[in-house]
Amino acid sequence: MPSFQRHVFVCINERPEDHPKGSCKHRGGPDVRDELKKVLKARGLGKCVRANNSGCLDQCEQGVTVVVYPEQVWYGHVTVADIPELVDKHIVGGEAVERLMLPDQPHLGDRRTFGKLDPIK
Amino acid sequence: MPSFQRHVFVCINERPEDHPKGSCKHRGGPDVRDELKKVLKARGLGKCVRANNSGCLDQCEQGVTVVVYPEQVWYGHVTVADIPELVDKHIVGGEAVERLMLPDQPHLGDRRTFGKLDPIK
Repeated sequence: MPSFQRHVFVCINERPEDHPKGSCKHRGGPDVRDELKKVLKARGLGKCVRANNSGCLDQCEQGVTVVVYPEQVWYGHVTVADIPELVDKHIVGGEAVERLMLPDQPHLGDRRTFGKLDPIK
Repeated sequence: MPSFQRHVFVCINERPEDHPKGSCKHRGGPDVRDELKKVLKARGLGKCVRANNSGCLDQCEQGVTVVVYPEQVWYGHVTVADIPELVDKHIVGGEAVERLMLPDQPHLGDRRTFGKLDPIK
């Protein structure tokens, strides 16, 4: 039974190419997910962190959307180039990457640190 | 910006029909997701709870798998008939539905209650 310390969902929702809202799939969601899985594997974190595809996270105007649980930190406009920082700073280090955070996350209050990963688990 | 009090992921991962592991898609994942969305909407909870498709949650032997965040409670063998109880007892009432919980969830310790939903938010 998994007991992931962090569980990361990457939106790969697809809409028709000409849909006015666009979609994370056409904005690079699958590439972001692939890079995330690759970096997690390279860091040896497969047993304590899981990355998953997700359906629409309802942030279609915010580029590729990623949400990290259990803390529920929402990131937007995430690109492949952002993934190493997201992994090392947030997933491993427990500090939110503020420059990628979506605005207005009242559930977080002032919290931007969430505890470091314990890769032994 | 969403600030969901609970965020529910339903595995709809698809493998070939003859794959030995099977897959949540062929075991009814999409029907479970549809029922969950329908019941949440009927309860007027769309603004404080979100239900999403998810890729493989790595519990392929456990029937349709559902995980509820932020508490990370894992449920297995979930059917359409289980959804009203899952919504009313856990999503709204904050009490885990023990009969559906996957075994061995050490991250929960003894916790089975997680706070009631505040539908005003």
